[in-house]
Amino acid sequence: MFKEKFSEGIISAKQFNREDIEYILKQGRKMIRVKNSHILNGKILATLFFEPSTRTRLSFESAMYRLGGNVIGFHSADVSSFKKGESIADTIRTVQNYSDCIVMRNPLEGAAILASRFANIPIINAGSGSGEHPTQALLDLLTIKEECGTIDGLNIGIVGDLKYGRTAHSLSLLLSNFEVNIYFISPRELSLRNRYKAYLQERKIKYKEITRYRNILDILDVLYMTRIQKERFVDQEEYEKVKSAYVFNEEDLEKTKENFKLMHPLPRITEIHPNVDTYSDKAIYFKQTGYGLALRKAILAELMID
Amino acid sequence: MFKEKFSEGIISAKQFNREDIEYILKQGRKMIRVKNSHILNGKILATLFFEPSTRTRLSFESAMYRLGGNVIGFHSADVSSFKKGESIADTIRTVQNYSDCIVMRNPLEGAAILASRFANIPIINAGSGSGEHPTQALLDLLTIKEECGTIDGLNIGIVGDLKYGRTAHSLSLLLSNFEVNIYFISPRELSLRNRYKAYLQERKIKYKEITRYRNILDILDVLYMTRIQKERFVDQEEYEKVKSAYVFNEEDLEKTKENFKLMHPLPRITEIHPNVDTYSDKAIYFKQTGYGLALRKAILAELMID
Amino acid sequence: MFKEKFSEGIISAKQFNREDIEYILKQGRKMIRVKNSHILNGKILATLFFEPSTRTRLSFESAMYRLGGNVIGFHSADVSSFKKGESIADTIRTVQNYSDCIVMRNPLEGAAILASRFANIPIINAGSGSGEHPTQALLDLLTIKEECGTIDGLNIGIVGDLKYGRTAHSLSLLLSNFEVNIYFISPRELSLRNRYKAYLQERKIKYKEITRYRNILDILDVLYMTRIQKERFVDQEEYEKVKSAYVFNEEDLEKTKENFKLMHPLPRITEIHPNVDTYSDKAIYFKQTGYGLALRKAILAELMID
Repeated sequence: MFKEKFSEGIISAKQFNREDIEYILKQGRKMIRVKNSHILNGKILATLFFEPSTRTRLSFESAMYRLGGNVIGFHSADVSSFKKGESIADTIRTVQNYSDCIVMRNPLEGAAILASRFANIPIINAGSGSGEHPTQALLDLLTIKEECGTIDGLNIGIVGDLKYGRTAHSLSLLLSNFEVNIYFISPRELSLRNRYKAYLQERKIKYKEITRYRNILDILDVLYMTRIQKERFVDQEEYEKVKSAYVFNEEDLEKTKENFKLMHPLPRITEIHPNVDTYSDKAIYFKQTGYGLALRKAILAELMID
Repeated sequence: MFKEKFSEGIISAKQFNREDIEYILKQGRKMIRVKNSHILNGKILATLFFEPSTRTRLSFESAMYRLGGNVIGFHSADVSSFKKGESIADTIRTVQNYSDCIVMRNPLEGAAILASRFANIPIINAGSGSGEHPTQALLDLLTIKEECGTIDGLNIGIVGDLKYGRTAHSLSLLLSNFEVNIYFISPRELSLRNRYKAYLQERKIKYKEITRYRNILDILDVLYMTRIQKERFVDQEEYEKVKSAYVFNEEDLEKTKENFKLMHPLPRITEIHPNVDTYSDKAIYFKQTGYGLALRKAILAELMID
Repeated sequence: MFKEKFSEGIISAKQFNREDIEYILKQGRKMIRVKNSHILNGKILATLFFEPSTRTRLSFESAMYRLGGNVIGFHSADVSSFKKGESIADTIRTVQNYSDCIVMRNPLEGAAILASRFANIPIINAGSGSGEHPTQALLDLLTIKEECGTIDGLNIGIVGDLKYGRTAHSLSLLLSNFEVNIYFISPRELSLRNRYKAYLQERKIKYKEITRYRNILDILDVLYMTRIQKERFVDQEEYEKVKSAYVFNEEDLEKTKENFKLMHPLPRITEIHPNVDTYSDKAIYFKQTGYGLALRKAILAELMID
């Protein structure tokens, strides 16, 4: 059923209704305890990364090996025929002959949709420009579910560059399937785009847009930090003024609830102070990478098992 | 027998007589239906790519995994000791300790021969500068054989930069084993080098050199397009004048015979219009990549099975 | 026992006492005859190379596959999140969720120690700046043991940039566990650092520092050549004066003892003349790469077998 619905792959968080999410989280949960398996023996995953990645690529590759499969691919546009001017459509129509599923990261927002239109095997969108990164959002939900016991009823803050941040986009779309209060926290010029807000409004999701998280730390169950790139600010003086408001530190942690969880898709640059790392009951961003492996095993298994 | 003759590897299309070609095409044909196998369990293929590649590297790697083997290698000269000034001879004498067969692409024309002189395991030339690319030509013949039912008796046009195009060189050499009429189509300054023409003449192959293909579209069975790089033209005005003559479009397709086949080693940049792609009975360049996988499985199996 | 002692990994040659070395050389010797095995089935090695490598990375990867395991990783800092500013500590705490052991090369001298402090799986230092490269030194000892029959009692010359050469550092530290005479041969400005000399003195190792090897060729059992980078010389005229004194040639070979062995960690640029290569009883640097594979198989097996 999941396999049929997602036969073209996982392109956008919008493909997922609540039932789909609950199903894949249940499968992800099972995978936490399955270290190795042979269910994908003989299968090949192609990982086509036109942009750098550590976590996403390596977790997909590890997941594939843990399930008995193999991996081909490239890690940089420079070593592929993209450098010679080949189109995504042509690359996809070639690589599908060599593999059973394609994971692609590309700087263009529409790249994953385009790829899925030309492919006869499932495409997994591993980040498409400032668009989406749906498997990151799914692993974020698995993390919340496992660490908080529930998703419904939570107060969830999402901090950072919400305009260009593909992780924040996909997470917001997925959360629209749950009874949550979302706080979108960003500088005004980097607030969530209207199209995402319209989607949430249609689905009657309660959300607020604010520019600081320090006032609401005592009510949050989850704070999801993301990176704000200096270069995104039109006014660099403005950046200097606000940047410390987006660096989570030990003092912040003290103001949080007992069951509070701090998350981050990583890489983290300066936006969480390293001292916070030691509070591993609340600072769960490294654990999150472990849930990522389990979730990606579940996805690969669902899409490729015969 | 094949294994003994090719124990040093596959360096040039000149190594192949008609019997060798027919044998490897027969093996390639069998591999079309063998999705997975264990015949190369425990074997390691090294893919040493000093130049970018999508199709060649990924199809060799996929072929190796489909047969049960493993792969090591590098995809860019920048990440190897080549960057520190190591010679090809030293690289080969090292890597042969870690693998059972080496696939190499290198910008120097003589690289593959040099490598095979120092190696004690088979070397497969995956493109040596403006020299040769023999496994591409073998997969081209497999494609022709499977799609046209025969190679003998065909009228085959080869278009593009025939002076520097390694694919065109290897294909011409292989075709000299068959009863074909070849049309070499290129701007005059990029015509086939004398050494290749001399080889064809010795073997009494009928060929013509022309600068346009549009007049002969109605007699061709196969048109093999390749890329002409703008940079190859001494006179850029000349390039602007001729370039449209080397872009295959829908109108061209209408002038072709019912069983006409359009091929391309890919990547294709502008030399075939995307509209042509939809005529998949005649436009077989993506199917060609599938035959490539089968042919490379056959080659790896032949060279490495104990 | 080995596994317990080295549960944090292999960071420095200083971790090894004579018993440890003899144990791992014995295991390495056994691996020479074991081509393939399944002892690491289901295990994943991560190879994180922030600097280029041919031998080290490919031999670890080949070793892993020969033992039945799999490999993930990156070959250049450019394709990882390091490019976005991620710290080594964060990269390690992520990748340990995807793998069973990490091999890392990094331009910073303290990188491997730092990594092992944060990791909960073994870290193998595959070169840390101008610091150490302990598995290279272990394979050098395996080579000496197998080719000379003994390590004790030998006269061993180590030539090159001893100040910055991490291979020379680790080899010197390991040799301090044996009864050897070491000749350190380098231009004065590139002589061994005091900290390494102090270590040898403490352990009562007989060593001499000289600037030329030609006078002692008749007493040496092993000469270990390494590269001197032109850029290391403050005075380029000085470099031009001395450089030929550091190029081993055929005439040098004639002055050596019957059982003399010439070694090199490779890549070799100009410091051994290619004519010397043909004297394969004395010039054993390519054989050395084969011992490297065996030794690395032994290390991976020791660190990862359950």
